[in-house]
Amino acid sequence: MKKKAVVLCSGGMDSATAMAVARREGYLIYALSFAYGQRHAVELEKAKQLVAFLGACDHLILSLDLDKIGGSALTDYRLAVPKEGDGYEQSRSIPSTYVPARNTIFLSYSLAWAEVLKAEDIFIGVNVLDYSGYPDCRPEYIAAFETLARLGTKAGTEGHIQFRIHAPLISLTKADIIRKGIELGVDFALTHSCYDPLTDGRACGTCDSCRLRLKGFAEAGMKDPVEYAETARSEK
Amino acid sequence: MKKKAVVLCSGGMDSATAMAVARREGYLIYALSFAYGQRHAVELEKAKQLVAFLGACDHLILSLDLDKIGGSALTDYRLAVPKEGDGYEQSRSIPSTYVPARNTIFLSYSLAWAEVLKAEDIFIGVNVLDYSGYPDCRPEYIAAFETLARLGTKAGTEGHIQFRIHAPLISLTKADIIRKGIELGVDFALTHSCYDPLTDGRACGTCDSCRLRLKGFAEAGMKDPVEYAETARSEK
Repeated sequence: MKKKAVVLCSGGMDSATAMAVARREGYLIYALSFAYGQRHAVELEKAKQLVAFLGACDHLILSLDLDKIGGSALTDYRLAVPKEGDGYEQSRSIPSTYVPARNTIFLSYSLAWAEVLKAEDIFIGVNVLDYSGYPDCRPEYIAAFETLARLGTKAGTEGHIQFRIHAPLISLTKADIIRKGIELGVDFALTHSCYDPLTDGRACGTCDSCRLRLKGFAEAGMKDPVEYAETARSEK
Repeated sequence: MKKKAVVLCSGGMDSATAMAVARREGYLIYALSFAYGQRHAVELEKAKQLVAFLGACDHLILSLDLDKIGGSALTDYRLAVPKEGDGYEQSRSIPSTYVPARNTIFLSYSLAWAEVLKAEDIFIGVNVLDYSGYPDCRPEYIAAFETLARLGTKAGTEGHIQFRIHAPLISLTKADIIRKGIELGVDFALTHSCYDPLTDGRACGTCDSCRLRLKGFAEAGMKDPVEYAETARSEK
């Protein structure tokens, strides 16, 4: 019998590829997404299409009140999204798009759902590029969450289940992720990365996330299938 | 200058006492409660009164979609709340009122808020009686979360803040907690423990939580100020 896996799905390239890895490894996919007051709500629409495309058994979308907590340019409209490399490239510190404790919150929910589903495996698409910016994308963080997951659950404590947190992209570059995703049949046209999209859903092309994505496609020698705002399109 | 602390506040006896401990230790209180589809929504009303009574600087109430995840008698109406000791006393296993990964989810949010507030300290009212039933109330679990909190945050990683998870009641019995709460000025009439209250808000008197509470008051040689349904009242 196939094993179940909970896969965190933001609608971006990384979680799409992580989901394709889980599918290739033979898991039944239970996709988990969040509506958390992010500017890029278009992500969720993409996430639905993507999850349907990749053939998940179920897709749970949970609403989170992260905007009440604030503290991030992604959830607090009073903070500006960094553009033109003033985020991760220039500051050398953690960028303002960091959402406090976001992956801890996301993984907590995935753990709850995994326990209910009797799934031992949780996939998250964190990677080495995030690593340079976000603390909750590092291998030692993922290992610490795995320890917590085993200690803090009924299933883990009673020994039925040894939760595993899979971060299959953690040591890959964006270009590696794109190559792997394509090899595994991901349609990147169904993914969304922009932190600050136009009202029509097109990517801005200038935020940190768009820049990393475009750089990844360039390094992989491929054309990004998503549509960008005019300024970005002319740069490509 | 006084230091800030985020205090998880369910509206029950334990979190009320934990909040009073934090206040006594000189912290400015930032109370955090959750609306998570629990049967005992009356808890939140009590929590508001309690937080006002204890003089918090702020009280944030976040809505969680835990009912969509299910798996607990507290959030899933299809599961029965154990009565008359068929929960923790007879089964010797983790009771059906266990909510999968609940404290992990609660602590994740408290960590997010603490990071935004620049608060180093988080208080949670877990205790030794919960310990016997719920895995996410044990000292090793609390220690694992503290490790995670330091690794998974910007503030923890950049070294500005060393997050501490305080569980001041962890080794106390219910009777000890009641004595300590009264010593610190907690009005237990403003607290609520019942898992399955009547529609008028009165406690059932027979669920695990009511039984533990009543036993605690009996052991402390005191009368519980909250109102119980007739059956429970006649037992007292």
